[in-house]
Amino acid sequence: MPKLWDDTIDAHRRAVREAVLDAAAALVAAHGLHGLTMSRVAEAAGIGRATLYKYFPDVGSILRAWHERHVEAHLAALAALAAGPGDVGERLTAVLTAYAGIEGARRDGDELHAGAHARGARERLRAFLRDLLAEGAAAGRVRTDVPPEELSAYCLHALSAAGELAPEAAGRLVAVVAAGLGVTH
Amino acid sequence: MPKLWDDTIDAHRRAVREAVLDAAAALVAAHGLHGLTMSRVAEAAGIGRATLYKYFPDVGSILRAWHERHVEAHLAALAALAAGPGDVGERLTAVLTAYAGIEGARRDGDELHAGAHARGARERLRAFLRDLLAEGAAAGRVRTDVPPEELSAYCLHALSAAGELAPEAAGRLVAVVAAGLGVTH
Repeated sequence: MPKLWDDTIDAHRRAVREAVLDAAAALVAAHGLHGLTMSRVAEAAGIGRATLYKYFPDVGSILRAWHERHVEAHLAALAALAAGPGDVGERLTAVLTAYAGIEGARRDGDELHAGAHARGARERLRAFLRDLLAEGAAAGRVRTDVPPEELSAYCLHALSAAGELAPEAAGRLVAVVAAGLGVTH
Repeated sequence: MPKLWDDTIDAHRRAVREAVLDAAAALVAAHGLHGLTMSRVAEAAGIGRATLYKYFPDVGSILRAWHERHVEAHLAALAALAAGPGDVGERLTAVLTAYAGIEGARRDGDELHAGAHARGARERLRAFLRDLLAEGAAAGRVRTDVPPEELSAYCLHALSAAGELAPEAAGRLVAVVAAGLGVTH
């Protein structure tokens, strides 16, 4: 088959896959994880049940793929903030604020976050934050008496408190965490 | 039965119970949670298997009682530090340091901490820390722009980072957390 045809098929497959994940996300948002079936996902995605099975063997694999996409989107958004305009202090605060928002949106019993993919994502997030903190320390904007690796673990744990605080507390939590880091403006 | 006799029986029952929990703790420390049986606990505690069953119906109930005792001992130790000598800044730092040590000793897969008792203990710990932080804020030793309730959640989450850091990092973590709280000395 010519290359163009391959590309077209690839694009179609990606579009179907995205539609399935969007449909699953909408169903979970509306009805929770329970009651999610292959038939309902197929119907919501506007494809046949047999087609859906060509993409995903079961509901669990759809949820894992959806969660993976979700986590990748978060990592990409945080990386964009880290690489964005502003000096390192401002970029660091932007990343911490965004992460507090992500943690604030998480709820208890979010069992998907216990998966291997989530652990891998957490390691990447931690490494990425460590590099940003090292950059801040080199620029004299972050404390230098504690290794960036440890500060990174501190940030992620401290910001997870957003999950049990009211949404309006997130900004205050970020200010407290930033004070711990010795972030200067 | 006379009161004295009741007291004697109570003391005996408590002593047996303590011996069972000590034996279970020693077995878990030596061999891990797996392989813990009623027979082994009875043998290690120096009592008969039939006697052990009068105290605990199964291994799970022994582990829960052991964990409950463990958590209560931690809460009592933290409360003693909070009520101890020194001004509120020193007492707060002592409590944070002790809690970092407790979190540092915890390991992943510590499923006992997911129980209802652990959740209740966490709530009590949080309330107790909130009161200590409020006392510190009133004394001008802790920041006052963030409610003590939120600072308490921040502390517990941030200090849980000790569980994934090297033991020698605990002191640095406490210093970072204290800086976030604006603790002045």
